[in-house]
Amino acid sequence: MRTHFCGLIDEALIGQTVTLCGWADVARNMGQIVFIDLRDHEGIVQIVAEPAEVEGNADMLAAAAAVGYEDCLRVTGTVRRRQSVNDKIRTGQVEVVAERIELLNKAEPLPFHHHENPGEDIRLKYRYLDLRSPDMQRKMRTRTKLVSALRHYLDARGFQDIETPILTKATPEGARDFLVPARMHPGEFYALPQSPQLFKQILMMAGFDRYYQIARCFRDEALRADRQLEFTQLDMEFAWVSERDVQDLTEDMIRSVFREVIGVELDGQFPRMTWAEAMRRYGSDKPDLRIALELVDVAELVKDCEFGVFTAAANDADGRVAALRIPGGAALSRKQIDEYAAHAAKYGAKGLAYAKIDEAGAVNSPVAKFFAEGAFDALLKHVGAGNGDIVFFGAGAYNKVSDFMGAVRLKAGKDFGLVQDGWKPLWVTDFPMFEWDAEENRYVALHHPFTAPAVDSIDDLRANAKTAVSRGYDMVLNGNEIGGGSIRIHRPQMQSAVFDLLGIGAEEQRAKFGFLLDALKYGAPPHGGIAFGIDRIAALMAGTESIRDVIAFPKTTSAQCLMTDAPSPIADAQLAEVHVQVREKQE
Amino acid sequence: MRTHFCGLIDEALIGQTVTLCGWADVARNMGQIVFIDLRDHEGIVQIVAEPAEVEGNADMLAAAAAVGYEDCLRVTGTVRRRQSVNDKIRTGQVEVVAERIELLNKAEPLPFHHHENPGEDIRLKYRYLDLRSPDMQRKMRTRTKLVSALRHYLDARGFQDIETPILTKATPEGARDFLVPARMHPGEFYALPQSPQLFKQILMMAGFDRYYQIARCFRDEALRADRQLEFTQLDMEFAWVSERDVQDLTEDMIRSVFREVIGVELDGQFPRMTWAEAMRRYGSDKPDLRIALELVDVAELVKDCEFGVFTAAANDADGRVAALRIPGGAALSRKQIDEYAAHAAKYGAKGLAYAKIDEAGAVNSPVAKFFAEGAFDALLKHVGAGNGDIVFFGAGAYNKVSDFMGAVRLKAGKDFGLVQDGWKPLWVTDFPMFEWDAEENRYVALHHPFTAPAVDSIDDLRANAKTAVSRGYDMVLNGNEIGGGSIRIHRPQMQSAVFDLLGIGAEEQRAKFGFLLDALKYGAPPHGGIAFGIDRIAALMAGTESIRDVIAFPKTTSAQCLMTDAPSPIADAQLAEVHVQVREKQE
Repeated sequence: MRTHFCGLIDEALIGQTVTLCGWADVARNMGQIVFIDLRDHEGIVQIVAEPAEVEGNADMLAAAAAVGYEDCLRVTGTVRRRQSVNDKIRTGQVEVVAERIELLNKAEPLPFHHHENPGEDIRLKYRYLDLRSPDMQRKMRTRTKLVSALRHYLDARGFQDIETPILTKATPEGARDFLVPARMHPGEFYALPQSPQLFKQILMMAGFDRYYQIARCFRDEALRADRQLEFTQLDMEFAWVSERDVQDLTEDMIRSVFREVIGVELDGQFPRMTWAEAMRRYGSDKPDLRIALELVDVAELVKDCEFGVFTAAANDADGRVAALRIPGGAALSRKQIDEYAAHAAKYGAKGLAYAKIDEAGAVNSPVAKFFAEGAFDALLKHVGAGNGDIVFFGAGAYNKVSDFMGAVRLKAGKDFGLVQDGWKPLWVTDFPMFEWDAEENRYVALHHPFTAPAVDSIDDLRANAKTAVSRGYDMVLNGNEIGGGSIRIHRPQMQSAVFDLLGIGAEEQRAKFGFLLDALKYGAPPHGGIAFGIDRIAALMAGTESIRDVIAFPKTTSAQCLMTDAPSPIADAQLAEVHVQVREKQE
Repeated sequence: MRTHFCGLIDEALIGQTVTLCGWADVARNMGQIVFIDLRDHEGIVQIVAEPAEVEGNADMLAAAAAVGYEDCLRVTGTVRRRQSVNDKIRTGQVEVVAERIELLNKAEPLPFHHHENPGEDIRLKYRYLDLRSPDMQRKMRTRTKLVSALRHYLDARGFQDIETPILTKATPEGARDFLVPARMHPGEFYALPQSPQLFKQILMMAGFDRYYQIARCFRDEALRADRQLEFTQLDMEFAWVSERDVQDLTEDMIRSVFREVIGVELDGQFPRMTWAEAMRRYGSDKPDLRIALELVDVAELVKDCEFGVFTAAANDADGRVAALRIPGGAALSRKQIDEYAAHAAKYGAKGLAYAKIDEAGAVNSPVAKFFAEGAFDALLKHVGAGNGDIVFFGAGAYNKVSDFMGAVRLKAGKDFGLVQDGWKPLWVTDFPMFEWDAEENRYVALHHPFTAPAVDSIDDLRANAKTAVSRGYDMVLNGNEIGGGSIRIHRPQMQSAVFDLLGIGAEEQRAKFGFLLDALKYGAPPHGGIAFGIDRIAALMAGTESIRDVIAFPKTTSAQCLMTDAPSPIADAQLAEVHVQVREKQE
């Protein structure tokens, strides 16, 4: 139906006749001459409908004059050099003098045009109009290119793309499972996978050696701005490997796709940091290294002061007192400081002490009075605070202080324009094996229960569960965990021991993970892997905050598709066929 | 952990030290010498543990002697030329003299070894052992290569791989929908997509121009041998195209992947056949052209006989009398002929008349007596029947006769060894737009309700609905419909008219397809596409009858995963969270 793409018409085509298909982005009727910006997925070119030159032009001009926004057109015409060059578009040196304008489909008056932003709900309802905008086309194409580049990289290296089931068995963390009633098995349900974790491990035991899949995963939980009910990960697994095999290959892969897709050269070798160091220096297991600020431990300098909050934490083996110096922060008003305290409170802080040093060097701090002569100055000196700075202090349990001080650090980075441009990837390693869940009075797995501990001995692990380190690792980029993985447990005895430590009894192990424990018995190879969040990486590459911009048909934060109106009620007769009914509302 | 793959050790490595990882496929302990066939995904190599040559060999020999089936090993040793060459394996010229044998994971006694076939249920329960067999590895790799080749072909041609949602809105053919209760919307449900049909059309309206996706689709219906609850299709859609654009590109694509994946050169140009011709000549809309047999219409030659079954059909405009000559078929016994009749009955035949011509030329037929002098001979002559042949006759409604005679043709093809080797692709085109559903007393769509009719005029379509031809097309290979598609309706008025003809009223149209009808209003481009069945194509390429051989974790015909035991019961408390309950059994 066409000879060329609108967005690719260039000077090489001058004098040639072309046939183009596209939408009328803008039409300007000047009476005896009509200009139409014709748009396809490659871009925009200017069409000119001039009068009287060619026989029959009157009809053509009438057709041009009738063109409205987003009419779908086919245009045949001759390319010529444009008099008034438009540098904003790729085709700005040329225009197409129309000989024939065919209306393929008329557009009714639009609910909005992509030149405006009518708000996200309207954009999602008329997603097909929103996606036509050059900006959304660019973002979506970044994702396409990313996925394609990843596949080509892995295909060339002997990875096999293997599909795992979407209709699977419900998992123990079942509260987040989407359930699907089974027609052939009354009262039974499939579950949608939260990830292909167990299937990919089984694939290694099945001899596949190197596996990947761009896998759809499902998690039924309250949506946040950056979450979707269904999301996409690059899921990978390797047989007969150690940590560095997985890390070195995937680091090279990420470097390669950044180069290929957006022309960015990432650091030659990603920095590596233990979880403990990341928490200590940045208060985060996914530190944003674009912000140069670091936490400073000051327990030694405050343990003898008279401020109980500080001394209690400073003298507790599991406590922490951390300071964060913000250059130029003395400019913060009382109200702004309260906002920082409120922000910290969201992450568990009971309070946020501070010290302002004004441009003249005078210190203003509600906690200075608790310190002996010179001790507060020594503290400020230790954290490197100078004139014009503010220092925030956090005190309490180690992990909680790290969390909220890490959050304060990020906020300060943004507020004070301290986020450097560019890309800061790193590996975070040596995660704790377990976290103590005080509410449930048991350990929970920090990664997942199939992650291998650093120690080989089951007795060692049992004796030192609290401090045990796992063989897990995350790839972090600009404060986002873009990939996470581990070496897995490959011996059934160790897997059972870890289940035991997690409070999963023998019967439960059998019921939920029987097939895994069986598979481990028949010569399972050592194996490990990683999964990368495609939505997030695509959003980062496309330069957008929202992953919804790189998902063709996303759901809202209330889990709805505004275009199709999903979810929706289902007739009771149809529910009967799959042996369920809607529950009566409970008071 | 290793330097090479087992299956790739060759003569170029003779004299070199290698480290290999793999499974003990077979171990033969000859006392002072032990042979181990070590297997990885690339193949098998022979390991030799010899005594006493190297210090410490005693330990190594002991380790080798203890090796059992499927133990997971790491072996370091030196490659040397083998004395007794094994031509059956790629590495058969060489062996590896072990210096170190490390047991990475011991295998318990196996439920079965892949050298045996314990039956499909056991294979599916221990799928990880089944998949380790070189034969299953080969089949699965054929699929991987197919998918990879398809992607590379399409990526190189500007197709964008775009993901569409798995959690979607229930469709009107809802009886086949899998339903997923929505936690945030009590009493409402998502549905899993039977295909991305509407999403891909919307993508064209959204400006994406060329789309593809290796898409998971879901259909909740009784399973047959060649169906799964979830299946995979290569889903494609093109904006601004006509039939031949779609067909020419995808024909080239299929030719290209057959060449690349299995080294097969398909015909330079696929034959094309209308649906009417396919039904007339082969009694099938997916004719297997490897079988040279064809149906012959004989209404003219039987319309004056005295056999009521023949004359009724021959004198009915919607009737058909068809003959099928089977060379050498006179050898069929009475019992075998009955089996043919029973086979035809499964496809709706009330009876199956026949005529046997023995080697001497004598005719044996229960219907000959109904014919006038010479008329039966003339009939047989018309069909080309000769000595030693059998001719089957079918009479009745046109489509029914075509169906069962087509089934008889396929059975005869197999029974008489008339299925030629090789690959016979073709295009079937010009499908009827509608089929009359006598039970529901309305038209149903032969493809789907979004398929464009061949006529542009709504009035034309309404006036000639019964005989209207659609712009649908199927790609058929060796009797399998491997791809099906159409040019879609792109004008809202035509879409509404087709919905009307299908008995979908205005209100229902709005409720179910409102978003499609809206999207068509805003300048939808002409568009069309196709979807290919990946499971079936992979099975054909891998040379297996069962698509379960090219799916890593398939379900049984009773919709279960025998490995993980899905589906399974769910605690009522968990169901309460998604606002459903299991229905009480009804008597």
